[in-house]
Amino acid sequence: MTYDLLGIGNAIVDVLARCDDAFISAHGLNKGAMTLIDAARAEALYAAMPPAVEVSGGSAANTMAAFASLGGRGAFIGKVAEDQLGTVFRHDIRAAGIAFDTPAATGGAPTARCLILVTPDAQRTMNTFLGACVALSEADIDEATVGAAAVTYLEGYLFDPPAAQAAFRKAARVAHAAGRQVALTLSDPFCVARHRAAFRALVADEIDILFANEHEILSLYEVERFEEAVAAVRAETRIACLTRSEKGSVIVADGAAHAIAAEPTRVVDTTGAGDAYAAGFLAGLVRSRPLPECGVMASVAAAEAISHFGARPVAPLAQLVRDRLAV
Amino acid sequence: MTYDLLGIGNAIVDVLARCDDAFISAHGLNKGAMTLIDAARAEALYAAMPPAVEVSGGSAANTMAAFASLGGRGAFIGKVAEDQLGTVFRHDIRAAGIAFDTPAATGGAPTARCLILVTPDAQRTMNTFLGACVALSEADIDEATVGAAAVTYLEGYLFDPPAAQAAFRKAARVAHAAGRQVALTLSDPFCVARHRAAFRALVADEIDILFANEHEILSLYEVERFEEAVAAVRAETRIACLTRSEKGSVIVADGAAHAIAAEPTRVVDTTGAGDAYAAGFLAGLVRSRPLPECGVMASVAAAEAISHFGARPVAPLAQLVRDRLAV
Repeated sequence: MTYDLLGIGNAIVDVLARCDDAFISAHGLNKGAMTLIDAARAEALYAAMPPAVEVSGGSAANTMAAFASLGGRGAFIGKVAEDQLGTVFRHDIRAAGIAFDTPAATGGAPTARCLILVTPDAQRTMNTFLGACVALSEADIDEATVGAAAVTYLEGYLFDPPAAQAAFRKAARVAHAAGRQVALTLSDPFCVARHRAAFRALVADEIDILFANEHEILSLYEVERFEEAVAAVRAETRIACLTRSEKGSVIVADGAAHAIAAEPTRVVDTTGAGDAYAAGFLAGLVRSRPLPECGVMASVAAAEAISHFGARPVAPLAQLVRDRLAV
Repeated sequence: MTYDLLGIGNAIVDVLARCDDAFISAHGLNKGAMTLIDAARAEALYAAMPPAVEVSGGSAANTMAAFASLGGRGAFIGKVAEDQLGTVFRHDIRAAGIAFDTPAATGGAPTARCLILVTPDAQRTMNTFLGACVALSEADIDEATVGAAAVTYLEGYLFDPPAAQAAFRKAARVAHAAGRQVALTLSDPFCVARHRAAFRALVADEIDILFANEHEILSLYEVERFEEAVAAVRAETRIACLTRSEKGSVIVADGAAHAIAAEPTRVVDTTGAGDAYAAGFLAGLVRSRPLPECGVMASVAAAEAISHFGARPVAPLAQLVRDRLAV
């Protein structure tokens, strides 16, 4: 196989700034969540934002960057426009060592951006203008690439651009036809609520490995207790990784549930924690490591992500994992 | 007066990445210095660079952002293009609280960028594609703005774009005609070497407050010992601030020389240290603080700049200065 992991997701440049809670309330932002905004709202919010930093983002793309830092071979499919931010996105993911050949959209909306406000409690509040991401379609799902990847990883946020659900279904179909596995992250509780029926059907029909945090999995199954969600997901997927912030995570598989502790770290900015977690887990899985070890790798990657401003890894993750597993 | 400080400089977006010394040698970069590169070289070097972060930069613009963080009222003159990176630059400097109304260049080169490689020893190696900066001309020097600023601060790097020297001369003339002061930073020893005669004439004729590091001031006067440079500059400017990295700085004024210690800090990335130093010094000067106190403010701002990745302040500098002066 050419790739250990293929990520399919929104191709986004993050615009990150620090702000206080007063800014969040004054602008009616949905703290801690991802809210979709249109071009006019993006312009108005950007004008009001403090000085910012631009860094390539996108949930699955962040996962791929972290996966490469863990030593994995990866590819990414996502849609940028032919503009400066599109050039930035393409440069960064390729420079991270990830193959990225999806043609840029031309003549339409600009490259997507996510206006991210980080509050002093390290929480991130995300406001996404999807831009060129809405141009991603089935035609962009290259069958050879999907067939050449051990695992295809789908980003739940891609349920928002209208044509992307069809692209998802195609990717899952092609992957399974080639005997590969399909993973999905639910991304955000509001995203789950917007597309619950479609998510439920996809999980039941096509997903081998599911990533979700506590809020997302409760929302998916419309249950109130974590244990009920564990029971529901156990019946539908081979492996489910359920993250619980500082309480660590639970890996549900083969009739067992493995509790994994969070790694201690100084929390600076939670942007990208879930993305990094998925990268760490999958990096272990594709090397056939035991599930608890995959969980530790996931926790190490997540801890690195939250220890600095921005979503993509700053420290070499493979080294961090080696150091941690050697202890 | 409307403004305490007006900065005139290159309007640049920094593209910052970490690399090792092998990358610096492999690409023939001039470690620790600023090298001008053309569009083709910028593209080739960017393609080879690790994943990066985009942050508004430019020497005088960084100074203005730090000056605003110190509570000063400021304005900036510089040239961006009408593109996404130009929008980023304009947003960030305005969001920092600095007035910026220079019209964008249209139909020419894109917004300038500086490809900055930060090595593990915290040194930055800068490679600048001047882009739209070469379109800055005398016409952009708004006389009302210059007249409304207590100090006009000129960035030495502006000697590189051809039309900017005339803009410099105009700004100095207008400022002095209005009874204001003119400050200059020499920016870089290679920049001094490229334009030594013009710099010498400008310093002798027009500069009230000069900022230079040890390498730059030695290059300006073509002398070998720091003491000789001090003697030379003393005869030509009212105030000279000569920085010496971890050895602190020397402020030469009124027949005296004040030695200022560097503030202790963890050195992460030296990008913007000199820019922040100038902001701190001038913030004290425009409030008529004693020169040694201006020097401490300069050292506090410089220490903040080198304690994180990127040139512009992350922590509120006014608070840091208050804390330091209260001790």
